[in-house]
Amino acid sequence: MAKIKAAVLPGTSPQPTSYDVAKLAGVSQSAVSRCFRPGGSISPEMRKRIQKAATQIGYHPNAFASGLITKRSNLVALLISNLTNLYYPQVLAELTQRLDAQGIRVLLFALQAESDVGKALDQVWRYRVDGAIVAAKLSPVQLRAFKAHGVPIVLYNRFGEGEAVPSVCCDSVGGERLLVERLIASGHRRFAIVSGPADSFVSQERVEGARAALERHGIAPTIVAGQFDHESGAKAARLLFTGADQPDAIICANDLMAIGAMDAARHELGFNVPGQLSIVGFDGVGPAAWPSYRLTTIRQPVRRMTEAAVTMLIERIANPGLPAEIRSFSGALIEGGSARI
Amino acid sequence: MAKIKAAVLPGTSPQPTSYDVAKLAGVSQSAVSRCFRPGGSISPEMRKRIQKAATQIGYHPNAFASGLITKRSNLVALLISNLTNLYYPQVLAELTQRLDAQGIRVLLFALQAESDVGKALDQVWRYRVDGAIVAAKLSPVQLRAFKAHGVPIVLYNRFGEGEAVPSVCCDSVGGERLLVERLIASGHRRFAIVSGPADSFVSQERVEGARAALERHGIAPTIVAGQFDHESGAKAARLLFTGADQPDAIICANDLMAIGAMDAARHELGFNVPGQLSIVGFDGVGPAAWPSYRLTTIRQPVRRMTEAAVTMLIERIANPGLPAEIRSFSGALIEGGSARI
Repeated sequence: MAKIKAAVLPGTSPQPTSYDVAKLAGVSQSAVSRCFRPGGSISPEMRKRIQKAATQIGYHPNAFASGLITKRSNLVALLISNLTNLYYPQVLAELTQRLDAQGIRVLLFALQAESDVGKALDQVWRYRVDGAIVAAKLSPVQLRAFKAHGVPIVLYNRFGEGEAVPSVCCDSVGGERLLVERLIASGHRRFAIVSGPADSFVSQERVEGARAALERHGIAPTIVAGQFDHESGAKAARLLFTGADQPDAIICANDLMAIGAMDAARHELGFNVPGQLSIVGFDGVGPAAWPSYRLTTIRQPVRRMTEAAVTMLIERIANPGLPAEIRSFSGALIEGGSARI
Repeated sequence: MAKIKAAVLPGTSPQPTSYDVAKLAGVSQSAVSRCFRPGGSISPEMRKRIQKAATQIGYHPNAFASGLITKRSNLVALLISNLTNLYYPQVLAELTQRLDAQGIRVLLFALQAESDVGKALDQVWRYRVDGAIVAAKLSPVQLRAFKAHGVPIVLYNRFGEGEAVPSVCCDSVGGERLLVERLIASGHRRFAIVSGPADSFVSQERVEGARAALERHGIAPTIVAGQFDHESGAKAARLLFTGADQPDAIICANDLMAIGAMDAARHELGFNVPGQLSIVGFDGVGPAAWPSYRLTTIRQPVRRMTEAAVTMLIERIANPGLPAEIRSFSGALIEGGSARI
């Protein structure tokens, strides 16, 4: 009867407490808390006895109460934007599963735009998270707020501009340079670049990387602003072929826009890709490899990057004095069938 | 100096407390807690004075301490599998943003398989979540555990088999029936069905829906087991065209497998789709609409479904005695170009 009542009136629910477990197991209440606290000192025999009693009466330690005592919430905040970008779902799944394997839960902040990050930070402080992994743009003031609150942070695919902040990145500049060099060596001369949203750090890095590599060959590309989605890639391709100065290579700041540009070039503008026009992307998302696209792109080593991010964060939760470190991974050139290289 | 020290030794960090805020604002500590508790009674003038003092010294109420007092964590657990399935990222982003707009944070459990849900539940109880939205298979025992813990739950795209549980669904059976009727009316007679993973409730519903609709016409389909991913759709198509009994229509239990089947049929087996072979999916994910595929499919009304799930959950957090309700939405037939219908 007590259980049915609990379902109806949770405010007054008779949830079993550590006192009930202690009574049933015939141990002290402090032994029960030691049993459920990570690293708590307790004999294997007593742990077994307490866990048996806890299971019997349906006791689960209260993470809030434990958090107040241990000053550890076992929560990590993930701040991530662009979940529908096809790249981030894999990153999110990998990060969540790796943190889970370490006994850490994920407090998710799915931002609509990178610049929305400010609104989320108040909540990050309130939940006393043990750390944060951030794939969104933080201002120097926001970065210093993490320090002030004693919350270790690892940036994912961005750097702390002007601040020394632990980061895991795929080398955008190196990746774009590789694409540009290969395209130039195979005879391309008229380049266009399609950027992502203006507030995206990743887009800025990639566009600037491609632009700088082209500049070394005396080539000034046409730059069109996209939004990292399929439709804006298609729009950019349409726009580029209305003018006089038509490209023979389009460098898109992510795969999704490159796929959109391929679709528009082939199905609307009647181009043979790569026969008449080369299109390249960046990320190496699933659809890039589908036979209808076989996109030439740079694939980010997501597994190694997410593993590095979780390792770096956990080290810094245990030892907040560790110096900042940037781990920059090279992406792999995927020689698909969308560029003559 | 205090702030820099806090960054180095968070265990001993001198975080400002409600006492510090009360002192600076010249009010009682109880006024400070009322100010930061949702629905707490306090005059606008005093709220302003307290918030000014809090900002000045960088005070943020501790969600753990508030949670112990109010018995509300303002956390909702999202249990979701198959994040790389292209359908769930949109669902996850929508749910998270809608909950966020209600002042509720998301504790994310990204399961590798639906049947992994059991491991997550212990953590769900520990964090005393206010509610849960679950897109994974729960056993009757697990469903009853939610009741026993007084945690309201809404199932997403599955029902509580044998238990009355609030659910939001897209009508799989009705959607498959619609596809089957249209395919039969346009002359298709030899059907194959590609299922998802064996532990997927969604797959079971869709396969059974299609099978039952075909049975009414006296047609027994070939059924091939897939995994909801692109590669298993391609594999299924290869397998179906090695035997003697080759289909003229393939019904895939999700879009991603349908896209894989289209790629294999066109690029490896040399079929004209839909000229020689019709292929249909289910979900209406982004890539289904790309010009290279233009998949004929059933599009789930994700916005209306996520809105309904959040509304139903919030109603039940406020009033746990509300009866269970199932809201089943019809999907829309997208007449793409992958089937002759």
